This record gives sequence, structure tokens and C-alpha cells, in this order.
Amino acid sequence: MINIAVLGYGTVGSGVVEVINTNQDSINRRAGDAIRIKYVLDLRDFPGDPVQKVLVHDYETIVNDPEVDIVVEVMGGLEPAHTFVKRALEAGKSVATSNKALVAKFGPELMDIARNKNINFLFEASCGGGIPIIRALNQSLTADQIDEVTGILNGTTNYMLTKMDMEGSRFESVLKEAQEKGYAEADPTADVEGYDACRKIAILSSLAYGKFLNYEKIHTEGITRITPEDMEYARVMGMSIKLLATSRKLSEDSYYAVVAPFLVGKNNPLYSVNDVYNGIFVHGNVLGDAMFYGSGAGKLPTASAVVADVVDEAKHLHENMPNEWNDQPLPLADPDQVSGRFFVRVQTTDLSLIRSVFGTIEQIQVPKAEGETGFVTAQMTLGQYKAKAAEIKAEILSMIRIKD
Amino acid sequence: MINIAVLGYGTVGSGVVEVINTNQDSINRRAGDAIRIKYVLDLRDFPGDPVQKVLVHDYETIVNDPEVDIVVEVMGGLEPAHTFVKRALEAGKSVATSNKALVAKFGPELMDIARNKNINFLFEASCGGGIPIIRALNQSLTADQIDEVTGILNGTTNYMLTKMDMEGSRFESVLKEAQEKGYAEADPTADVEGYDACRKIAILSSLAYGKFLNYEKIHTEGITRITPEDMEYARVMGMSIKLLATSRKLSEDSYYAVVAPFLVGKNNPLYSVNDVYNGIFVHGNVLGDAMFYGSGAGKLPTASAVVADVVDEAKHLHENMPNEWNDQPLPLADPDQVSGRFFVRVQTTDLSLIRSVFGTIEQIQVPKAEGETGFVTAQMTLGQYKAKAAEIKAEILSMIRIKD
Repeated sequence: MINIAVLGYGTVGSGVVEVINTNQDSINRRAGDAIRIKYVLDLRDFPGDPVQKVLVHDYETIVNDPEVDIVVEVMGGLEPAHTFVKRALEAGKSVATSNKALVAKFGPELMDIARNKNINFLFEASCGGGIPIIRALNQSLTADQIDEVTGILNGTTNYMLTKMDMEGSRFESVLKEAQEKGYAEADPTADVEGYDACRKIAILSSLAYGKFLNYEKIHTEGITRITPEDMEYARVMGMSIKLLATSRKLSEDSYYAVVAPFLVGKNNPLYSVNDVYNGIFVHGNVLGDAMFYGSGAGKLPTASAVVADVVDEAKHLHENMPNEWNDQPLPLADPDQVSGRFFVRVQTTDLSLIRSVFGTIEQIQVPKAEGETGFVTAQMTLGQYKAKAAEIKAEILSMIRIKD
Repeated sequence: MINIAVLGYGTVGSGVVEVINTNQDSINRRAGDAIRIKYVLDLRDFPGDPVQKVLVHDYETIVNDPEVDIVVEVMGGLEPAHTFVKRALEAGKSVATSNKALVAKFGPELMDIARNKNINFLFEASCGGGIPIIRALNQSLTADQIDEVTGILNGTTNYMLTKMDMEGSRFESVLKEAQEKGYAEADPTADVEGYDACRKIAILSSLAYGKFLNYEKIHTEGITRITPEDMEYARVMGMSIKLLATSRKLSEDSYYAVVAPFLVGKNNPLYSVNDVYNGIFVHGNVLGDAMFYGSGAGKLPTASAVVADVVDEAKHLHENMPNEWNDQPLPLADPDQVSGRFFVRVQTTDLSLIRSVFGTIEQIQVPKAEGETGFVTAQMTLGQYKAKAAEIKAEILSMIRIKD
């Protein structure tokens, strides 16, 4: 018998209880032992819900019970999650969490404690919901040196961009609709400004490259400035605008990471990742291209990943499973020094003016666009682009990176 | 020091040596020990190739050497691969193989020996090349009951179908081109008749459902009868013709498996899997939809998966990692009893004749098609379809299943 305690009976917490009840037999067989939910911690009561029988309001009951082998943290937020998780690990209990904010900020500290206690701190559900990307990086792609990880890691913004693309609607109206459907929160900042995707790419990059990528160091832009006009240009180019969270190895001691809207072409497997789905592209030096696709959020897919971690921890109760992440900071290049191509819209129809500043360009012609020019630059660094954008005597209406 | 022996210095075997040499440091770190290639077995000599130093021609040298911990079988074919692998396992050496024919036919026997010896028989590279689908089924999706596995599992036929779609060319000319480029073998039967994909879906289904699916029981059709006219109808329908290897759970004691060309719609993530790439769609009862995408073949991607198995075996040298596959046969439904929709082309333009036999149909109009009618049937069993096809007084030009 393996006793677990679930911290938080919200969406994911109730999903964890549901998954364990639904697939009890196969889960127990795979874990090699019976998994029992001994406690669920929540400040609220849930009259009439069977959870009431195992509900506790005081974390001390859980952390002081030597029978509890595994703690599932699905409360979200930094506090009290951080304190609770740290105390659980220090008490010799393995922890499974879906909390990307916690992992991105305190991952190295918590993994250190788990290593020292010879237990496990797992967080498959923190990135890409039900998509088993973290176990793939830790246990499957072990013959490779990963040199790129690029993900559509936020379902809310991907849903919104897909809608804007299909229906030609404006950001504000799509946001309102997403909020009404429950796909976006009342305060959508973390999603639409890219903060959520930023934490996730920090976690995935740390595992892929074996060094700690601090999410606070990643240049992050959201999708609030994307317009139906941008979408129209994308369509003409046969491309799609996606919020990508991407990192890649430039050299042995230099990496690049950014979260921003990108124009993605049809040959990229991320092009077809639509609606609330997530997709994570990985390039390995011997594997080549791979992509992992699935539900990036949602009660049951996220709970599926949390419970898979619980099964793994049950199978390795007093045996730390190593991963590549360590405390050394990942060396980041100055984003201004990194090259790419840029799609630009300027408020002028004077091509010779544009060419005098940007040199060779590829003009993109959209029937409806009036009084402006859309074009793709040649390969240049972001710093060079910025200098040209400052120099040109016309307003820049938008700039979107091209994913090559 | 972990000593390995590689059986076969062909494409994959030389890839394994190259991957281990290229990524030596990270592989050793992840394996927790230094991996050394002690022997490579091949009947041929390779003058001037550094492999010559470790080359042996007699398997006895390997199987009788107690220093050899892991045997890598990348010869392909059933014999002598089966004898060699069995003897290695019986001698207490873990085995990693890329050989789908071996796994599909002798998997249960070889896994039994590995279990009894408390070692491992792993075969990540046998399905989907570099795509880490087997470890995902065994170790990641453990909270789920899988109810569908559908894959584009053969790169050669996917390349050919993509070409036929893009260029409107006939099967024969695309095959010739694929052979010239080395994408198809001189005898292309195993690929184009679906036999290769059939063995792979048998392996994946056995792992997903925890029972043995004998590949000989799977109804298998290839792509040899697909014509440019079929492709034209697919285009008009906004769909793509893919060779799918698919299995699904109909009820607790009834499963369905088939390998055949299917019409796949844009909403299916497999729609965008083109060229030599493979994609494997999995549906779990709590996970929902997931897809794994990557290089399904090729020297280095396949070797990447083989070496990942070697790393896992090095980490679990005398500890069997269980999976769900067992010897009990997977109960299969009669394919004639399973429902679906079918795209049909008949050599008549008499719609009332068609409706008198097939009832409600959705006609598909293709400008160029003359003297024939293309249509999609209502939902019916394959048996019902066959009865109607036998009844109608007009030649059936083609029938392709619709992937719903």
C-alpha cells in the first residue's frame, strides 16, 4: 500500500482523484502496489462529495504522518506551495507537482533535497499538460545532445490565435469569447503576455541542456499586439502566427531563448497545432526532428501526467531518478546578437525608402492593405533590425519574427 | 565499464557506433558508467574502418564472453537474429534491438526469458525509428487506459503517398523514384503491401493493451491500388490519403486492428505527417489525444533509439523493467462487423442506381472525373459495405476507408 496526499482540491486536484478512481486496477498494476489517497488538503469543505472522508484542513496532519509516501501538489502559486513541498521532501516524501511557477523558480533547490533524501521530485504536468515531454527528455532522448526545444506551450493563446486566424477577429473580441468559454482567466495576463509559456520553456530548456535557465532572463513578448491585418499577411505567405517559446544551442557555451509570436511555415510540424492543443518540437543531434502533441491543459490530461509521476514515484520509492538539470546557470547570448528574418509592416508605400534602409526585402502583397507595405527582411541580427527600424522615416505597424 | 557487442555493421549498426562515439560524454553520464563497444559482429571485413579493431566474425566470441553486458541486435530478419538474441538473454546479457520482425514474432518468448533472468529486452527502435513511442507507452502513459493507437509507421509509403498527392504521379513512377533515391528497396513488397506497418502496430498494440496481438491476424492492405484519381478526390474533400496502421478497443474483450489506406481529415494530427516522417496517434481514456512525430527510419534516428535503450539497460543492468505485454492473445473482432464510412468510386453516373443500393450518400464532385461517381457512404459495417459492393451493377473502381 502506497499512501498519497493531494494538496488542493481544485480542477487538477479533483482530476487526480478521478483518474486514480477510474483507472485504479491498471494504475495499481503498473505501480506494483495499491495506491491509496489517504488525505486531500483544502481549506474548503465539499459537502456531499466522497472526498469529504479524506479531507483535512491542516497540512501538519499530512507532513507529520509517516504513512504518507507521496505528496501531490496541485494548488498552484508559489506560497504556500513552496513551503509545503519543501517540508514534504525534507520529511522523506516524494512529490509530484503540476506547478510550473514553483518548478521554474525553485526547481534546483527542490531537486537537490530530493537527491539528498534519495526520493523524487517530479513535474511532468508542469509543461504541456498531458504530453509526456519531460519523461521523454529525461529518459528517452538519452543518446542525443538536444540543440533545440520549441513549443506551443500555452493553450489559451493558441486557441485565441487559431480563432483570429480562422475568423479574422480582433484580439479583444477573441479574448472576451475565450473568457466566456472558460479558456482564459478573468486576469489573462499570464497567458496573453507569454509569462506562462516563459516558465515552461525555462523548465524544458533546463532539462534539455543540463543547466538552469532562469525564466526571468528570457525575453518575453505576448500576443496582445497581433492584429487581423497581421493574420491576413500570414495567410498570403502560407504561414501561421504562433506564440512560440523557443530555445536553442548556439555553441557549447552560448544559448538563445525567447518567447514571442512567430510566423511558422507549413513544413514545420508546429504549423498544424491548433486550438487549445500544445506541441513541443525537439531537435537532437542524432535524432533529428521530433514533435510531441496533445492537450496542454485541462483537468484530466493534466491529472493523467500527475498520476503517471505518482506511479513512477511508487515504483522508485527510495531511489532517486537522476535528470540532467543542475544549478549551473545556462549561458545566454545577447538576443540582439542573434540572427533571424523579420516580417515588418510599415506605414508607407514608398518601396525605395524601405529598400534604402532595409536593403534586399521580399514584399508581401495583401489586396486589402492600403497605405502600408508588408515585407520580409534578409537574414540579420535583432540588433541590426532595431537600428533600421529606428532609422526609417515611417511608422512600424508591426514586426513578427520568422521561424526558420 | 559496460561492455556492449553490436550484431551487424550495416546501416543501423554503423549508426550505433557513430552515435556512441559522437555523444560519448553525455551518454556515459546518463548511463552512469562508461559504455564501451567491445565487439562488432559482421561476416564482412571493413578494411580501413576503425571498426576493424573490434570486429569479430564468430558469435561464440560474444556470447561466451562474460564481460559483455549488453548485446545490440541490428542485423534484421528472423534468423540468425532470433537464435543470437535468445542465447544472449539466456547467458544473462540484456538485448536492445531495432528488429520489428523479431519482436512481432518472438517478443513474448524473449521478454519471458529477460524477466526470468532479471535483465531487459528493449526494442524502442523497432517502431517509429527515433520516435520515443515505446517508452511513452511503457513508462509515461501509466495513468491511462489506452483505447486507440493509430500510426503512420512506414516512411517509404508515406513518402510515396506525399509525392503522389503533391505531383499527381502514378504509384509505379513514384516507386521507381523512391528506389532511385534509396527510400524504397529493390523488393518493395514489405513496405508497399503494408507488412512492415503491420508488424509495428502489432508491437505497439501489444504494449498499449497488455495482451499479445499476433501480426498474422491483422487484416493488411497496401497502397499499390491508390491512383492519382483517388488523390484528386481526396484533395476536393480536403483530406489526405495515408497508410494507417490502427487498433482500437471496442469493449473490454474486443479489439479491432487493420492496416490500410485511409482518408484523413485536416483536424486529425496525422494529416500533416508528410514525406518520410512517421506519426503515432494515441488516445488515452484520461489523457485524450496525443501524437508523437519524427523520423521513422534512417541511420542516425534509429541508432538514437537503440542507444537510448542501451543507456536504459546500463542503468538497470540486473533489474527487469516490466511492461504490460503478456502472452495472452488480444481478442480481435471480426473486421466485417466493425463500422465505418467508406469512400467509393463506381463506374457509373447513375445516381439513382447508386442510391438504390447504398441509400444515403454524399457525392464528391471532381471536375476531371468522367463516366464515374465518387461518394462517401453513411456509417455501416465493412460486411454491409461488401454486400452492397457485390450487389451494385457497376464496377467498383476504388474503396478507401474514412478515418473518423
